[in-house]
Amino acid sequence: MPDTTPVYLEEFIALHPADLADRLQRIDAKEARHILQELPVKNASAALTELEDEILADLLEEFPQTKLVPLLNAMYAEEAADVLGELEETARARLLRKMGAKEAAAAKTLLKYPEDSAGGIMNDRFITLRAHQTVGEGHRRIRQKHREQKRSDINYLFVTDKEKKLVGVVSIRDLIFSDDEVKVSDIMDREVRYVRVTDDQEEVVRRFEHYHFLGLPVLDEEGHMAGIIAGDDVLSIAIDEQTEDMQKMVGLDGEERTLTPWTQSFKRRLPWLFVNLLTACLAGVVVGLFEGTIKEFIVLAVFLPIIASQGGNAGMQTVTVIVRDMALGELSPGDGRKALFKELLLGLLIGTIIGLIVGLVSYLIAPKFGMSSETGAILGLVVGSAMVLNLLAAALFGVLIPFALKFFRLDPALGSSILITTVTDVAGFFFLLALAKWVLTGSAQA
Amino acid sequence: MPDTTPVYLEEFIALHPADLADRLQRIDAKEARHILQELPVKNASAALTELEDEILADLLEEFPQTKLVPLLNAMYAEEAADVLGELEETARARLLRKMGAKEAAAAKTLLKYPEDSAGGIMNDRFITLRAHQTVGEGHRRIRQKHREQKRSDINYLFVTDKEKKLVGVVSIRDLIFSDDEVKVSDIMDREVRYVRVTDDQEEVVRRFEHYHFLGLPVLDEEGHMAGIIAGDDVLSIAIDEQTEDMQKMVGLDGEERTLTPWTQSFKRRLPWLFVNLLTACLAGVVVGLFEGTIKEFIVLAVFLPIIASQGGNAGMQTVTVIVRDMALGELSPGDGRKALFKELLLGLLIGTIIGLIVGLVSYLIAPKFGMSSETGAILGLVVGSAMVLNLLAAALFGVLIPFALKFFRLDPALGSSILITTVTDVAGFFFLLALAKWVLTGSAQA
Repeated sequence: MPDTTPVYLEEFIALHPADLADRLQRIDAKEARHILQELPVKNASAALTELEDEILADLLEEFPQTKLVPLLNAMYAEEAADVLGELEETARARLLRKMGAKEAAAAKTLLKYPEDSAGGIMNDRFITLRAHQTVGEGHRRIRQKHREQKRSDINYLFVTDKEKKLVGVVSIRDLIFSDDEVKVSDIMDREVRYVRVTDDQEEVVRRFEHYHFLGLPVLDEEGHMAGIIAGDDVLSIAIDEQTEDMQKMVGLDGEERTLTPWTQSFKRRLPWLFVNLLTACLAGVVVGLFEGTIKEFIVLAVFLPIIASQGGNAGMQTVTVIVRDMALGELSPGDGRKALFKELLLGLLIGTIIGLIVGLVSYLIAPKFGMSSETGAILGLVVGSAMVLNLLAAALFGVLIPFALKFFRLDPALGSSILITTVTDVAGFFFLLALAKWVLTGSAQA
Repeated sequence: MPDTTPVYLEEFIALHPADLADRLQRIDAKEARHILQELPVKNASAALTELEDEILADLLEEFPQTKLVPLLNAMYAEEAADVLGELEETARARLLRKMGAKEAAAAKTLLKYPEDSAGGIMNDRFITLRAHQTVGEGHRRIRQKHREQKRSDINYLFVTDKEKKLVGVVSIRDLIFSDDEVKVSDIMDREVRYVRVTDDQEEVVRRFEHYHFLGLPVLDEEGHMAGIIAGDDVLSIAIDEQTEDMQKMVGLDGEERTLTPWTQSFKRRLPWLFVNLLTACLAGVVVGLFEGTIKEFIVLAVFLPIIASQGGNAGMQTVTVIVRDMALGELSPGDGRKALFKELLLGLLIGTIIGLIVGLVSYLIAPKFGMSSETGAILGLVVGSAMVLNLLAAALFGVLIPFALKFFRLDPALGSSILITTVTDVAGFFFLLALAKWVLTGSAQA
């Protein structure tokens, strides 16, 4: 058969799978599907595993099944499971039936676990030994594994007992320095760190970050070794998890990208904007309650956004620090109280400084709004005090909101930016207007 | 010498260095310093390298130099460089003079590069071979390296020419499958991916995430191999970089933690809160300009925070998506225009939906503020239109702000949350009040 590969395909074939995926993500889905079908299986299957989840789901929707099966067969089990996970159940079952028996069985095993659990991110390329085997056998197993699979990242061998339970770990290093006749049980480390298949991937990231693992074994419900999580896979997961936190804070779904189709973005952003609408209305209600006070002292309307904005920003700073530390598991019991104390202290200090400035400004501009200098002084006091109180509220709720969300078993990041700015809007408006009504109305009458 | 280790020290010695560091971060600096001096060098040096930068700097300030030298000598060169990097220059020079000659030289080499560059995060534990050497020699070098250093993560060997320039790479896997007599030049991969010592660590994270490297060689200005970046080190850096983005958006310095001493937090948060104060004043000025309009239609004061808040939240959603994708290098040229188009479309759609709701609400509550149903209808139109316009402004500036920051070679995240909410406050207030002044004042007079 003559080589009839078109020139544009050759260009794609020369690309690294990740770069090929980048190109495919930026062209029309129909064209991308066409190119994937024309490419050699090796390139097409590698590129598929590099696509963003949403774009992958979009591409798969109308991908001919007969063309997809060889691509799935060519993937590692965990990659095939990820791709199959994007399909609806009937399509998935049909593809699994058409795939090679071994490949389908391996993918099925991994598909049992939720996408964001340790089971969902582990792979099945680990080597186990028995404690009574020798170092020489270990070397043979490594060579065999290297022959089967193009991996250069085997750093550990795992030792299991006759019930397939994990009892030890041997590093490649220890293997290299031991004579072939030495028993595995003599060099293995019996203190093995592991995660469970059901553990959240966020917890997995925490362990890798904290302990600098190169790989971490995953045990199933019975304590049998079910898979291994590779360090290089954890990097992408860590980035995804932090992106999720950033996004959830402002009411995004955690998986939105610049290139996400607008229809998806629309569906996902709208709900939280509705929540924001409802909470923003609370601030509007507070203003409505003090209608008369504002009408009497219209200068208050000038300071409402300033007090709210300062509170919102200070509250966001607090929430951002806490949410991040909480997500990465860096808070120990007792740290919450420390954080609250620190934030309240900062709120008081910063509030006082900014309150003094804003109070002085309001005193200075009061005459422009037809106020006597005496009323202006009282206005200054009101505005300054409202600022201090709102920064204290920002501190208090900036700590409380993520802890409360966590207490209710929600993601501490979830809408936290929307919640904190609502609190600081409502509290700021209330402090300013209530104080003004109480003090100013009286003074103006006096 | 009898074993006089106190019980509490034994407890600390039993901990993993990362857990020990966690404990030290939560106690008084003086006590932590005491414990570090009492611990065996191995434990103390390992714990030091696990501390958060700020707490490390704090601990080092009054740490006796004679006790610090053996700890530095016991560290890997890049760890010692990191610790020394936290000290002021004279103290650093003094310690380098007291350290072992070899250890000091290695640390000095790494200290040449900025902390957040590829040179600042690489280590010097790589193995080089010459192309004419054999696979057998490669095996000997690995054994030797394993003997010198307790590492199990050697995945590649690097091939250099006689000018010490990097010309190829050999994976452990290829080494295992080649006979001892085979020449390195016959099995090496000549297409080596690398970074330069001066490359930003953010760029390093991007490459690791994109290409799933296990390790990446770093070349100096002359193209000589200067070090290697290990995959497990990149995880912490990736998390730090994303934390920095999250924090910079809201005016934090990027390195703040819950346990950061309040004096540090105070110094770092205040400047951006001042910036926010100035920008918030702009919104106040807009309100002041339309003083008369608000006085006439006090109901407008109720809708000011609602329109500002919706714009702020929608703008934050846009900024958050763009900043993250920009930081991770996921935006190609042309993506900016796509993003702008998508965001404007979303702004128009979401703005219309929410504008209709808010417009209807304002029409319904208008009578409560003494408006005729006709004026109420016009109010509804004004409020709804202001909402649409503000969500369009949020979309436009949500895209423009990070791109503009990048254009001026600033971090796209820098204060972006403060900037976008200022824009949506000012724009929202202006749209509502200007429209109201234009349409309502006329209608009320008519």
